[in-house]
Amino acid sequence: MQHKRATTQVEIHELIASRWSPRAFDPDKAVSLQDLTAVLEAARWAPSCFNDQPWRFVVCDKTSNLAAWQNALSVIAEKNQLWAKNAPVLILTVAMQNFNHNGKANRFAAYDTGAASLSLCLQANALGLITHQMGGFDADKARQVLNLPDDCTPMAMLALGYQAEANTLAEDFQAGEQAERSRAALEQRFYLGQWGEAFK
Amino acid sequence: MQHKRATTQVEIHELIASRWSPRAFDPDKAVSLQDLTAVLEAARWAPSCFNDQPWRFVVCDKTSNLAAWQNALSVIAEKNQLWAKNAPVLILTVAMQNFNHNGKANRFAAYDTGAASLSLCLQANALGLITHQMGGFDADKARQVLNLPDDCTPMAMLALGYQAEANTLAEDFQAGEQAERSRAALEQRFYLGQWGEAFK
Repeated sequence: MQHKRATTQVEIHELIASRWSPRAFDPDKAVSLQDLTAVLEAARWAPSCFNDQPWRFVVCDKTSNLAAWQNALSVIAEKNQLWAKNAPVLILTVAMQNFNHNGKANRFAAYDTGAASLSLCLQANALGLITHQMGGFDADKARQVLNLPDDCTPMAMLALGYQAEANTLAEDFQAGEQAERSRAALEQRFYLGQWGEAFK
Repeated sequence: MQHKRATTQVEIHELIASRWSPRAFDPDKAVSLQDLTAVLEAARWAPSCFNDQPWRFVVCDKTSNLAAWQNALSVIAEKNQLWAKNAPVLILTVAMQNFNHNGKANRFAAYDTGAASLSLCLQANALGLITHQMGGFDADKARQVLNLPDDCTPMAMLALGYQAEANTLAEDFQAGEQAERSRAALEQRFYLGQWGEAFK
């Protein structure tokens, strides 16, 4: 089992440092209702503009609702299905386009939904679960099969479950699963005082 | 000092449960370079579509660069300035509009930037710091004063610092600071199997 801690200049909290996005899911280990509730509660308490909570999550749990899970799997890009098919839970994350309080366009909806999703992923990590979000899915098909209204935007398909050994993956994915995690250097994304001035 | 833990059906990790968005910042306590680095490192290791890391953060630290901090403060909505003026660090979070690898529009940019920002907020919480994100700022003015390029979208202004007593706030904000935190019920945002089916 791979535990791939982030490489950082100074120490960061273990819950954040140890979260990553494996593809090797154990097809034989379901997620308990209690753990599912916990990861959703973590998402629920994320911050949002005007406390609007513009996120919606559609949980498709293979154990309790096989048809829904199959619906979710069917909208995922074929290459992703090769590994996502072993995830016992697939969750579609969705952003509402308009504010609740006035019906006007909410330009922070995706931003806030991304925060809620990360909160879910970190709580999963706390429970020994793994998560992997995908942009590679058919958003229009997701609308149909999961019955979404028009005024929302499907953002990501999130696979949730337990980690398996890398060698259970299709060969194409094994090197990636075992590679070191990487990020751009801090100064390439984080600036000091104005745009382009490297943070150090 | 208010510690306002989230109310949840099942237990969630303390780091997530205890994060909230106070407005009472202590104007006399600067954030150390080590702690600033840690919160940025936490953001840096957030997940993103194609590992693009579409976020950019412009850190305006009153201690090391007063002019930059004043620039940041000046773009914040007047009502927010009443409390944000006590935050020793103001950070503009920004989403790049296009993917690095092919220059095409990245529809996940705001979503991923929101995740990185929450990661920052949670690491801040781990260090005894507080954070409060604002949508209420002049994005066009932020572009000018912080020198942003055209192909990015300013998302939020994030205040970072140490918590002060609620009674140090302007009177208008004191009740909110002391009120219980609230979120919609789980079943109003989280569905099971298809849109609208309450998760329970």
